[in-house]
Amino acid sequence: MIEPSVSLYGQGLQRVTDHLGALLQKSHSLYAMLIDRKGFVLAHRESLWAPRPPSLDSIATLVAGNFATTAALARMLGETKFTELVHQGEKTGLYLEEVDDRTLLLVVFDQSTPIGRVKLFVKKAVADVGNVLRESPADKSETDAFDFGDDFTKSADALLDDLFKE
Amino acid sequence: MIEPSVSLYGQGLQRVTDHLGALLQKSHSLYAMLIDRKGFVLAHRESLWAPRPPSLDSIATLVAGNFATTAALARMLGETKFTELVHQGEKTGLYLEEVDDRTLLLVVFDQSTPIGRVKLFVKKAVADVGNVLRESPADKSETDAFDFGDDFTKSADALLDDLFKE
Repeated sequence: MIEPSVSLYGQGLQRVTDHLGALLQKSHSLYAMLIDRKGFVLAHRESLWAPRPPSLDSIATLVAGNFATTAALARMLGETKFTELVHQGEKTGLYLEEVDDRTLLLVVFDQSTPIGRVKLFVKKAVADVGNVLRESPADKSETDAFDFGDDFTKSADALLDDLFKE
Repeated sequence: MIEPSVSLYGQGLQRVTDHLGALLQKSHSLYAMLIDRKGFVLAHRESLWAPRPPSLDSIATLVAGNFATTAALARMLGETKFTELVHQGEKTGLYLEEVDDRTLLLVVFDQSTPIGRVKLFVKKAVADVGNVLRESPADKSETDAFDFGDDFTKSADALLDDLFKE
C-alpha cells in the first residue's frame, strides 16, 4: 500500500494547521493544503467565507501528478525542477510552492486577492511549515515499511525453528 | 497521422514571427513559441543573446500535454480551464497563455527579467497573434480530412454505376 512520505500528527499537525490558517487569513485565500509528492493531504484549512470545498484529496492527487510531470520540462530548460507553479483561471487561481524534498504547499485563491499578495504570504508559510517539518520526530522513510526490526526477525526465526523441529 | 490544428504559412507566419520577435525584445525573454494544443510548434523565435535553445518540439509537446492535464484540475475548482500557467525554476521560468481555442503562446525567460514584465508583453502579443490567426485564411479543421466534396461523391457514384452495369 502506498503511504504518505511524511507522518504529521499531534502537535506538529496542529502547528502546521495554524500556519495554514494564518496564511489564509493574511492572503485572503480560499483553501490551503500541505501535500506530499505522492498526492496525500497532510494538513489543510479552509477559509470561513470559502464556498463548500471541492474534493481536496482529488486536487492533491492531480496537483502532485502535475508537479511530477513538469520535472521533464524543467530538465530540458537546464533546471533540476520547477519550485513554483501558478495556474490561473478566470476567477480561481492555484499557487504551488515546494516546501522540502517531500512536501508542497498549495493555495487556492479567487479574484478578491492579487497573486502577489498570495505569493508573499505563501513564502512566509513555506518557511514556517518547513521549520515544523524539520523539528517533527521520526519521518517515515520509504524503507521503513520493509524494516521489521530485530525482535520480529528473532521471533520469526524461533517460529521457523519450531516448525521444522522434528 | 496527427496534423497541426492550424496551418500557418506565408504572410500569416511572417506576421506571427514578427510579433514573437517584438515580444522577445520588449520582455527580454529567451524563447517565444506559438504552439497548438496537440503540441506542434506553429511559429517560434529565439533571442540573439539566448543560449543554444533546447529542443523546441519536445518542449511544445510536454507543455501541451501538461496544459491538457490541468483541465481536470480547473473543472474541480469550478473553472472551465486555466488560461495562464507559470512554471518557475531557480533561474528559468516558463509562461504560457491561451491565444484561442486551438493555440497557446509560450515564453521562456530567465532571471534577467521580472515575470510581471513578461506577462505584460505576452498579453499584448496574445492580442496581436490572435488577430493574425483570425484573419488567416482557411484553417484546417478536424473534419476536413473526411469531407471529400461533391465532385468526389459524383465521380465515385458514376464509377460504382459503371462497375455494376451489366
